Amino acid sequence: MYKLEEIKVGMVESYSQTMSEADVKNFANISGDRNPMHMDDLYAEKSRFGKRIVHGMFSTSFFSALFGTRLPGPGCIYVSQNIKFRKPVYIGDTVTAYVEVKHIDPARRRVYFDTYCKVRSLKVITGTAEIYIPE
Amino acid sequence: MYKLEEIKVGMVESYSQTMSEADVKNFANISGDRNPMHMDDLYAEKSRFGKRIVHGMFSTSFFSALFGTRLPGPGCIYVSQNIKFRKPVYIGDTVTAYVEVKHIDPARRRVYFDTYCKVRSLKVITGTAEIYIPE
Amino acid sequence: MYKLEEIKVGMVESYSQTMSEADVKNFANISGDRNPMHMDDLYAEKSRFGKRIVHGMFSTSFFSALFGTRLPGPGCIYVSQNIKFRKPVYIGDTVTAYVEVKHIDPARRRVYFDTYCKVRSLKVITGTAEIYIPE
Amino acid sequence: MYKLEEIKVGMVESYSQTMSEADVKNFANISGDRNPMHMDDLYAEKSRFGKRIVHGMFSTSFFSALFGTRLPGPGCIYVSQNIKFRKPVYIGDTVTAYVEVKHIDPARRRVYFDTYCKVRSLKVITGTAEIYIPE
Repeated sequence: MYKLEEIKVGMVESYSQTMSEADVKNFANISGDRNPMHMDDLYAEKSRFGKRIVHGMFSTSFFSALFGTRLPGPGCIYVSQNIKFRKPVYIGDTVTAYVEVKHIDPARRRVYFDTYCKVRSLKVITGTAEIYIPE
Repeated sequence: MYKLEEIKVGMVESYSQTMSEADVKNFANISGDRNPMHMDDLYAEKSRFGKRIVHGMFSTSFFSALFGTRLPGPGCIYVSQNIKFRKPVYIGDTVTAYVEVKHIDPARRRVYFDTYCKVRSLKVITGTAEIYIPE
Repeated sequence: MYKLEEIKVGMVESYSQTMSEADVKNFANISGDRNPMHMDDLYAEKSRFGKRIVHGMFSTSFFSALFGTRLPGPGCIYVSQNIKFRKPVYIGDTVTAYVEVKHIDPARRRVYFDTYCKVRSLKVITGTAEIYIPE
Repeated sequence: MYKLEEIKVGMVESYSQTMSEADVKNFANISGDRNPMHMDDLYAEKSRFGKRIVHGMFSTSFFSALFGTRLPGPGCIYVSQNIKFRKPVYIGDTVTAYVEVKHIDPARRRVYFDTYCKVRSLKVITGTAEIYIPE
């Protein structure tokens, strides 16, 4: 884990994953989100998206992984997360999740992040997060 | 799925689940969030929480399930989700997730929700969400 | 389970599985091995292998299954396993794992195996294992 | 990923996980290793170990994760792995897997590791690994 004083504005970590049909079914099972937009080819074909899409909350779970294992790393406390789902992620897309330090409040031991997901160069999810780093 | 004109302020749906050790491992596996706070008894014992806690983003995935399957139901579009993690959820706790209609904007076809999770009477997670209902 | 005196040099057991994308994600999830070579199409395309490969340790887990369920079968003790990863296994390949008796030490109740995996006629993984058979 | 010239003898990475019943079932499912020593309480009670044990190859899969994600990290090639299973790991034990740099061959771009797992202070699994780092 990074110590608070080692964290600098501009630091960034990322993780990439090709989002497969199996992934989507796994996330549906765990979350219970069986929206036909994720589960049902025939429904999705007739929808505005034209084919099945990946759960937005699946891609954002990678923010949690990046915070808990990379930056700041083990021991940090997740205080808040704001998310805007901007574009659909389709099955087969490769998503890259980023967490990027934007501001640090040493007195309150808080680190503020921009959090976003890209598919190729397109930002499909944006948002911000607040992390507390215990002494 | 509810039609936009059937949705009223104050409508609420909820889902409850006892969060087991197996659930936590499944969420860690899918998300990649292997923070020792979730994975390692010995680490967690020495931490501020005293024992392993459930991933915050796991409990919030139930909001996605409620929106996608109950209120408004299939076909709705998840626009945004804000989350505040207020208290830890421990392995063995029973979490109840709620989505409650707070405001409706018929012109823009948006429904605004309060979203929260309780363990017994305690609000452990709070937040708000915006849902778009296509015609 | 075979008794020690029933086991003969040259006995062989095998198991075949088509290694799917879903299998690879499951192994990544359980092991935590999210090397982009296994998880990320775009990364893998630019790598020496040209596409995503299956975790080597996934194919070798079939040796453990063959020992524990077929030859010698339930009750045997896994003492050691040496592994050489010779060629990549790609998603979609059908792997056949073999365990073959090479030597028996009746006094110490040990059985020594050659262990290897093939894709078509190509040996992709080789190695040896030592098994102890309790009385 | 570490560059070859950044890797020094003595560098070490580790990962800890409390090995639950759910974990064992998940590994049995993926590997097919349904040895009753892992799956069957009644069988295990009468065995030399007295209760169900975790698959040895499950703990060693964490070596693969450490190589592929931490040291050396993404892009490295797993050449070989030797394993000795010294002591049983029981369900409920917290396993810590370590990979430690022992020797570097810059001409052949190979890094040689000691790889071991501990439960508390006890080495339950030992071995060595060879990793190739492409240019």
